[in-house]
Formats: sequence, structure tokens, C-alpha cells
Amino acid sequence: MQDTAAFYTGKKDIAVTGYTPDPPKPYEVQVRPAFSGICGTDLHIFNGAMDQRVELPHIMGHEMSGAVSAIGENVADLEIGQPVTVMPLAPCGKCRACVDGLSHICYHLQFLGIDTPGSFQSYWNVPAHSIHLLPRTASLSHAALIEPIAVACHDVRLGEVQEGDKVVVLGCGPIGMLIALVAKENGAEVVVSEINRFRLDLASSLGFNVINPTEDDLIQYVNNWTDGSGADRVFEVSGSTAGAEVMTDLVCVRGAVVVVAIFGQPPPVDLFRCFWREIKIIGVRVYETCDFSQAIRLVDEGSLPLDKLISDIRPMHKLPESFREMSEGADLMKVLIEV
Amino acid sequence: MQDTAAFYTGKKDIAVTGYTPDPPKPYEVQVRPAFSGICGTDLHIFNGAMDQRVELPHIMGHEMSGAVSAIGENVADLEIGQPVTVMPLAPCGKCRACVDGLSHICYHLQFLGIDTPGSFQSYWNVPAHSIHLLPRTASLSHAALIEPIAVACHDVRLGEVQEGDKVVVLGCGPIGMLIALVAKENGAEVVVSEINRFRLDLASSLGFNVINPTEDDLIQYVNNWTDGSGADRVFEVSGSTAGAEVMTDLVCVRGAVVVVAIFGQPPPVDLFRCFWREIKIIGVRVYETCDFSQAIRLVDEGSLPLDKLISDIRPMHKLPESFREMSEGADLMKVLIEV
Repeated sequence: MQDTAAFYTGKKDIAVTGYTPDPPKPYEVQVRPAFSGICGTDLHIFNGAMDQRVELPHIMGHEMSGAVSAIGENVADLEIGQPVTVMPLAPCGKCRACVDGLSHICYHLQFLGIDTPGSFQSYWNVPAHSIHLLPRTASLSHAALIEPIAVACHDVRLGEVQEGDKVVVLGCGPIGMLIALVAKENGAEVVVSEINRFRLDLASSLGFNVINPTEDDLIQYVNNWTDGSGADRVFEVSGSTAGAEVMTDLVCVRGAVVVVAIFGQPPPVDLFRCFWREIKIIGVRVYETCDFSQAIRLVDEGSLPLDKLISDIRPMHKLPESFREMSEGADLMKVLIEV
Repeated sequence: MQDTAAFYTGKKDIAVTGYTPDPPKPYEVQVRPAFSGICGTDLHIFNGAMDQRVELPHIMGHEMSGAVSAIGENVADLEIGQPVTVMPLAPCGKCRACVDGLSHICYHLQFLGIDTPGSFQSYWNVPAHSIHLLPRTASLSHAALIEPIAVACHDVRLGEVQEGDKVVVLGCGPIGMLIALVAKENGAEVVVSEINRFRLDLASSLGFNVINPTEDDLIQYVNNWTDGSGADRVFEVSGSTAGAEVMTDLVCVRGAVVVVAIFGQPPPVDLFRCFWREIKIIGVRVYETCDFSQAIRLVDEGSLPLDKLISDIRPMHKLPESFREMSEGADLMKVLIEV
């Protein structure tokens, strides 16, 4: 079978074509992706929103599972065929964040699959440090969700969600859904707020209480649920002005709002409410190694209902139409490409 | 000498007149104020901004020092003449905040001097639990600043300022100045940003590096100062849209912005920057008992240059003109009334 890659060439243009993969350089590992998920960031790129950042033609993809196919020089302790996933971060190693042990928010971070070629190709060369071994028992389709699960693990950990906490998740795409699931796994009671019917139904089928804030009064709902105190934690995953406006209204004294979403413009935020209730607003981004390890463990243990989150698994030649469908808001949660 | 009190009767109207003080009720202590400071909140009330909250005629004042003058029933362990200050909070004792040990942000908090009569009167009845004893060695004029110093102690404590931290204080009225001083006392390096020349000069005379952000580029200044990393902590004490806009631009990865100021309207806040650098925005309000104790200790030890912060000490009959002068933005930092 011919080696193929999906090349993004400009707004809404993506094509799967034959190509010749490079061998891995020193300190690199070549991985043969098995499954690679389509992420919201990929859709942003597809819609032309990140053309200033990506180099064209660009191969996307950073949520994946696969196996080691070749090993570059100066890489030890790996074998061909080992099942792996990739933590797609390449920090500089020298800036203050890196020195302080916060390399995931390195001042000069390169993100594999955005700032470098990604996993929608037959063979993917990545820095050896980005490789995470998978247990042989892990499902490879589920393992393609480790990266977004690690995001959720990071967000829930930095949000310090405790057993018994009442948690509101604003926005229930794949990341919001995974945050809800990981928070529940931590023993929290979770309410999901979302305006999309498909996502609401899916969250509901996973056992969450759901609310559509365009139909019901979210603040009143949360106040009733919490005897007027407010929720312990709110995760803002919608990236909407409405979400930013309401998020501080939903939190108890000394509670926290965790800002997961990417806001294109600074929205109005009720700083008076932050002051009045001593609320924290916590920005969180990607994941650290411990979050990746937790995500691998959750996948291997089968703790999360991942089959319900994977809307479809499609062959590589269906990647362009999948991007189109998803960017038009089709009823799909996570779509995996069988690379 | 006749007993007097300052009665606020409506926007810009305040008059000092004779009155007959009540004896303390059970569980109350009557205090004879020595000095009582004019606070920004008092000026807000004076300007009519809180007419919906205060009951007219209203006696303001909550920053004070004085001595016990009478003791109500069911109050133990106090003696007439003991020097005291008052922590002017009256929590409900029953709500979730109170039960969780956060009574300073009680859901039904009453603030003495706002929701009840205050200390601009010859005799002030307060709940016994609000009394804090002063060391006999403490200066009573300095002790009138314990309440705002406790605010600063609380803000610096919740901001987790560490020795060697680089700290920016946006807005340098009395609270901003005290935050700068307490942060410095904690071993931080502090830069003060302020647009008022009088306040800038005072901060400079206290040894702080100062910047006027309308004359110089604050972001560039902080980047130069921190080798491009950003400051560890930023205290937003200006309450201005410009302050809210710039605050997130000044902070390092995993740094914190402490929101001290009271924002009348939700300003735009750069949540993308919060996400990108994993910044925390921490709302802080009033103080807890430990902050009051620390403030008393700082005053007693003479650790802070309080004489330089006290612009003037004036007799009670000059209270109305002092309110007028200060609400017109006179070059005054803290004015104490000798009650």
C-alpha cells in the first residue's frame, strides 16, 4: 500500500496524497500511526484561522496511537513495534518555564502537528522525549484519545476537584465531555451546560445532568442544586462571551473557574464577583507528563466510556470530507482516522 | 465636651452634630474612638454611590483605634480603658462560608460602619467578637491604620507572595501603597504603577520603583525588569479598565493577578493570556483574623513607615471638609480624624 499523508494547503483545502516519508533524524523516533483523531485545533487550522502559524503545505494531527517503526540515532530503550502514543510538545529547555519545571507552558513551545508536521501520515517522526509507551493491553482506538484525555486530567487536577464537589462544565465538545468524565471519576457531581442538542443527548446518555442555558435559567438551576451557595468548580470550555459572562455567577465562595477554552477576544469578566466571593479564575493549558500518564492509565483500565465518544472511525481517504462535515457542525463527537 | 457624631444624610451632605450615645447591648462593647481614618468606601458613600445600601442618616467609619468605654452583658475578659481596634465584620455564622471557616466572606455579611453605624462618633457600640486588643506599646494614630493594613496582609497572603518575587502594584492609593509595603516586608521586589503624581512621588520617597503608564510603556518596563518572563504577582488595585486590560500582560507563567479593586462594571479580561501562561486571577476581599493579628503586629513593631502615609490628623469638626477635599482628589493619602 502506498504511503499517504493529508496535506492542508489553505483555507478549507486538504488532500490525501502519496508521499515519501523521511527516516528519523538523531534523537527522533519514527511512529506508524494506527489511529489519529480530528481535534478542534485541526478544524481551526482547516478553517484558515491559523495560517499565520502553520507552514504550508501542512500535515496536521496530534491525537494518536501507533507503533514504533524506526529509531533514530542516540535513542535508547525502545524497540520496533512497541505500541506508543505521543505527547506532542517540544519545549525549548532553557526558558524560565522550562527551568521551573513547567516545560508544557514553555515560552517558546513548539506543538507537534501545528508547528511541525503531524500524525495524519503513514510515518511520523517525533522527538524521542515525546514518546509514551502504551501497555500491550490498551485498545489502540481508545489510545488515540489519550491526548485529549490528558488535557482533561490536567484541567481537573489544576482545578483541584475533590470528591463530592459540585462541578459545572460549560460547553460539551470532546474536551468538555472528557472533563466531565474525569471530574466524575474523581468523585464529583457534574452538571453539563451546552446548547447543542446532539451533545446534550450524548452527555445525558452518559449519566450527566444536562441543561440548555438558552432554554432554562442556568444560574437559578445551579443555585437550586447548591442551596444557594454556588458550585465548587466551573469549567469554561465553551469559549463564548455568554460562558465568560455567566461563569463567575455559578461559583461558591473561594470556588474556582477553570478557563480551558481559547478566547479570541477578551470578553467582559465580572471581577466584582471574583472579589466579592474570593473566586479564583485559573488558566490551564495542555498537560504535563503526570497527566499523560494518568490518561494512559484511564484508557488501559477502561474507566471511561470512550466507545460512546468515538462517533466514527474512518479510512484516510475520508479525512477531507470528515474535516468538512465537522467544520460545518455535524453531529459528531470524536472522529478517528485509521491512518 | 459634648458627644458628637458625623451624620451622612445624602449625596455630599455630611454634618457633625451633638447626639446622645446608646449604652452597649448584651454581647456588645462600647468603644471610645481615638482616631478614625477616612476610607475610599466612605468617600463612595459620601458621593451617593451606596445610597441603596446605607440607612440614612448614616454614621460612617470603620478604620479606628480607641479604648473600651463600656461593656455589655455577657461579655467577658475585657476591661474599661483597654486599647482596642475593631475588625468591622459581622458574619451570620450559619451560611456555607461561615461553616467552612470563611466568615469574612459570609453570604450575608454585615460590614460595621456601612450596614451598621460606624466609628465617626464619640462612642461606638460593636459586637464583642469584633474587638481586637492592642498592645499598650502601640501608637494609637498608627493603630487606626490596622484595618487597611489587614487588607494588605490578606491580599499579599492570598497572593502567596514569596521572598524574591517580582511584584507589580497597579494603583497606589492607601491600599495599593500598603500592599506594596507588606509585599516588600515579605521580601518581594515591588514596582508601583500609578498615574497620580502625588502618589507616585510618595511611593518613590518610600523607596519603590515607580512608573506612570500614561508616560512610559508598562509592559515593556516589566519585560525588561524580568528578562521577558513577566512579574510573579500583579495586584490590580486601580479598579480601572486600563488596569484590567494590562494586568494579564504583566505576569509570568503560572503567575497570579490579585484583584483587590472593586469594579463597577465587568471589564474585558484577556482570558486567552490566562490560558496561554496558566495565570491565576485571584479575587480577594477584606481580611481574616490572622490578617488582623499580623497587621497589629506590624503596627506594634513599627515595621511600616506609617507616618509618611498619614497625610494629616484633623479634629472632628473638619470631617465634612476633609470628605469634600478627598472626594475632589486632593493630594492626601490617609487622613485621620481625631474623634
